[in-house]
Amino acid sequence: MRVNFLTDPSQYRHWKLNVSGERAELILDVDENGGLYEGYELKLNSYDLGVDIELYDAIQRLRFEYPRVKVVVLKSGKGKVFCAGANIKMLAGANHADKVNFCKFTNETRGAIEDASQKSGQIYIAAVEGACAGGGYELALATEHIILVDDGSSSVSLPEVALLAVLPGTGGITRVTDKRMVRRDRADMFCSSEAGARGSRALEWNLVDDLVSPTKFNDLVKQRADEFATRSDRPTDQEGIKLGPLTVKQEEKCYQYSSVSVDLNHDLGIAEIKILGPTDGVPNDVNQLLLEGDQFWPLRVARELDDAILQLRFNELQIGVIVFKSIGSSQEVSRYCNFLQANTHHWFVREVIFYWTRVLKRIDLTSRSLISLITPNSCFAGFLAEIMLASDRSFMCEDVFEEFGDLEASIILTSSNFGRHPMCNNLSRLSTRFLGQPELIENIELNIDKPILATEADALGLVSMSCDEIDWDDEVRLFLEERSSFSPDALTAMEANIRFAGPETMETKIFGRLSAWQNWIFQRPNAVGSTGALKLYGTGKRADFDKKRV
Amino acid sequence: MRVNFLTDPSQYRHWKLNVSGERAELILDVDENGGLYEGYELKLNSYDLGVDIELYDAIQRLRFEYPRVKVVVLKSGKGKVFCAGANIKMLAGANHADKVNFCKFTNETRGAIEDASQKSGQIYIAAVEGACAGGGYELALATEHIILVDDGSSSVSLPEVALLAVLPGTGGITRVTDKRMVRRDRADMFCSSEAGARGSRALEWNLVDDLVSPTKFNDLVKQRADEFATRSDRPTDQEGIKLGPLTVKQEEKCYQYSSVSVDLNHDLGIAEIKILGPTDGVPNDVNQLLLEGDQFWPLRVARELDDAILQLRFNELQIGVIVFKSIGSSQEVSRYCNFLQANTHHWFVREVIFYWTRVLKRIDLTSRSLISLITPNSCFAGFLAEIMLASDRSFMCEDVFEEFGDLEASIILTSSNFGRHPMCNNLSRLSTRFLGQPELIENIELNIDKPILATEADALGLVSMSCDEIDWDDEVRLFLEERSSFSPDALTAMEANIRFAGPETMETKIFGRLSAWQNWIFQRPNAVGSTGALKLYGTGKRADFDKKRV
Repeated sequence: MRVNFLTDPSQYRHWKLNVSGERAELILDVDENGGLYEGYELKLNSYDLGVDIELYDAIQRLRFEYPRVKVVVLKSGKGKVFCAGANIKMLAGANHADKVNFCKFTNETRGAIEDASQKSGQIYIAAVEGACAGGGYELALATEHIILVDDGSSSVSLPEVALLAVLPGTGGITRVTDKRMVRRDRADMFCSSEAGARGSRALEWNLVDDLVSPTKFNDLVKQRADEFATRSDRPTDQEGIKLGPLTVKQEEKCYQYSSVSVDLNHDLGIAEIKILGPTDGVPNDVNQLLLEGDQFWPLRVARELDDAILQLRFNELQIGVIVFKSIGSSQEVSRYCNFLQANTHHWFVREVIFYWTRVLKRIDLTSRSLISLITPNSCFAGFLAEIMLASDRSFMCEDVFEEFGDLEASIILTSSNFGRHPMCNNLSRLSTRFLGQPELIENIELNIDKPILATEADALGLVSMSCDEIDWDDEVRLFLEERSSFSPDALTAMEANIRFAGPETMETKIFGRLSAWQNWIFQRPNAVGSTGALKLYGTGKRADFDKKRV
Repeated sequence: MRVNFLTDPSQYRHWKLNVSGERAELILDVDENGGLYEGYELKLNSYDLGVDIELYDAIQRLRFEYPRVKVVVLKSGKGKVFCAGANIKMLAGANHADKVNFCKFTNETRGAIEDASQKSGQIYIAAVEGACAGGGYELALATEHIILVDDGSSSVSLPEVALLAVLPGTGGITRVTDKRMVRRDRADMFCSSEAGARGSRALEWNLVDDLVSPTKFNDLVKQRADEFATRSDRPTDQEGIKLGPLTVKQEEKCYQYSSVSVDLNHDLGIAEIKILGPTDGVPNDVNQLLLEGDQFWPLRVARELDDAILQLRFNELQIGVIVFKSIGSSQEVSRYCNFLQANTHHWFVREVIFYWTRVLKRIDLTSRSLISLITPNSCFAGFLAEIMLASDRSFMCEDVFEEFGDLEASIILTSSNFGRHPMCNNLSRLSTRFLGQPELIENIELNIDKPILATEADALGLVSMSCDEIDWDDEVRLFLEERSSFSPDALTAMEANIRFAGPETMETKIFGRLSAWQNWIFQRPNAVGSTGALKLYGTGKRADFDKKRV
């Protein structure tokens, strides 16, 4: 079954989005019978990928369609349970790749909540009534403030280790230790307890921020929402930008969006993503920008690219290599960068920039080999050049190629490339590339806004290789053949380590350390074997563990 | 087969240690027929755990027995090959736990090379002639300076991904990206190439520091050794401290050293490590210290504890919980801390302190649940209190217990506890425990050198729980029973994430991110399945990969 990531609130089965002035409510009210796959019921507000796709959509729309919303309150539509986390039967039945992809997307969506709260002034609060367990608590942990009702039964918990022999792997452990800075022995107690914590212990251990009686719960939620709203710099007088449906022509070997296309070669395991540069000029001013709305070229490309990457991740497991190409005018793209740069104060421009940052991070975190081909007709400039810098390898045409007449391949770096789109490690892609060598970046910065030809790009260290027409086809072909001969797992693990040089952040810890351990657990018989805890959960049978410690 | 970690140069089969003045040579000359296990020959200077145990011993002895050695040159005793890395047949035949434990120990030994170079003024240089592949290059990467001969064939390489479908997982990738700061696309090329790099490319890509013709090789090695020696602050006039053989009485359920004992309960999966406090007083001065030599109590305990932990890791896989106890006078232990503090300028004292730092790190990295029990007769003070702070949980006796008369349990923190023994994340255990809350540490520091009773220790956040006599036995028993009911894998992964809050360093990246991915790979059919690359290596058969990307 193909996974479809495109939705909108009219199609939601599991979330309700209520907006009133500067406050929105995102209400989780899962349709038990609305599971994405067969074979399980989404009881107790548990979730599967389908639930998370709606959440992702809602978070996106809140950013663009509701500029005036300053606070988003996450709550449950079912009285007695906030959220029971990822559905266990779903998880137990999923194959390894689906588990890993699901967790990664969930992690990215949790990251989008923090991104909105911390960068965009759209601050999330979790208002917790009832059991808030596992992935449910991980969801709450992604917000800036957790309010727990003190009713003698409502609790927060991470029961994965005790119940399922897996980790709270979508950020849970890392956010407990690094975001909420819970003392390590308390974190150990909490993460190995099925029951978790409620009442004063939850507050004392900093697992929640507020504890309040049931009668005062709604008042406190409102009060906190008002307080957080005062910290927000979102506009009070702007209309939103409606995110219209993406149109995609989907065929077996090709997806075609307006400015992005994906061509699949299943035999070779290669997908080619082609990005079309702008065909219309840069808006004259912000008013024209607002008229363009969701058709503003950078936003349109970001949405299409985002969807294309997600489709490849979930629907094309046999694709091991993604080849990025771009077609258009580098100068035109760099004009878009300059327009963005000149208008960073405007909320909509800011959202477009932040969205590109998130899409580029999603590319960094995609476990396929990423290759950029820079040809004479390419337009890898500014934020599109970040794709080249996010790639594991880049090949650039040197001198003229018969097919393109006099045109030579060039790159243009702009203000977009020097820190505007940090990676998860909080460094720019250039700073990661030239770790500990700031003088090389200064050198590159001298060429800002100027076309850089292949020889110079090579000398500056911006591309992996420049090739003339005689060698080009062979070099690219040989590389692709070699890549497809390697173990896909070894490449996944190698790339996960090579791409993130330098400092680590909570985000890289979640995607690196925590996820890698979670992926390991998802292979271990004690969890996923026929007598493993994840497999046997709900059967009444007890897991039979191999007691050897590894 | 039990692994024995105790050795000395007279027993080495694979290494030669030559010392001459301020320079030592560590020469790898592997005995093909000297493998630790049956079933493989250590061809091409490849290594197994036995080779690494000798290396670990040599590194230790160089620190203590050779105070005047300022530079250690790592080289090969076989002309045409520096080192082919971990023996592949050995690795392919090992079970998962053995692979993981072997890699971890190897990583710790590489870390000990960096520790010596960076902290102790005993600086390692790799003099590379011949092929330096995989773990061989990872060994070279642990040194401060790599000299490669330019003979048209000698090369450095990390062929794991291309040949074996596993990672260069003992630090290789991380040291390439974070220590040598190789540009990520070059790192990608290098780590996916079977042949690696030689000559000018190896130098240009910063994979080595010097490239030199065969005729000038020895001269350059000597020149660099002389240069590095001038940077060292090691003494020029001191005699070494001979590390005599450890005596251990080994029985099925007990190992008994002079000041450390280990009692095993295989049914419950628990090992109890008991440390005896000092029986003799603190040395009067440095002269007396030197007379005590390897019998100096802190050194003796460190050596015994180090060996006990290694034995548990490799020889007792069914032990899931390590319970730490100490018996003696906290005041006496704190006097030892004060003696160390007063003499930090002395090379031998410095070595003892650094060794404790390494032993404590080894405890942090041990994948067993770590528990400290603080009873009225305990002496968890100073560096012994670090064991308590390294534990996942600590239980402290509150008030008097009949068995101990009037004596109450107490802890003493000393100068040892506030940064002298940083964890791999480069924070003290207290700073990691109270991440982002320096005021709590300041509060604790007010109690330095004073006995802290249970109620106060609990209030200061130093212990997980204080219990009176009525509850003690039940609390401890219930905890141990609960712990042993969980999946050992889930606990390993959980503890690996909870123990290292806060910043990451190259070291934590190697033990966290890189090792976790390596452990994952070591479970994947593409590597270890019957048609996996690691299994089939050397058979002439080609691995058959599942091409799905995860």
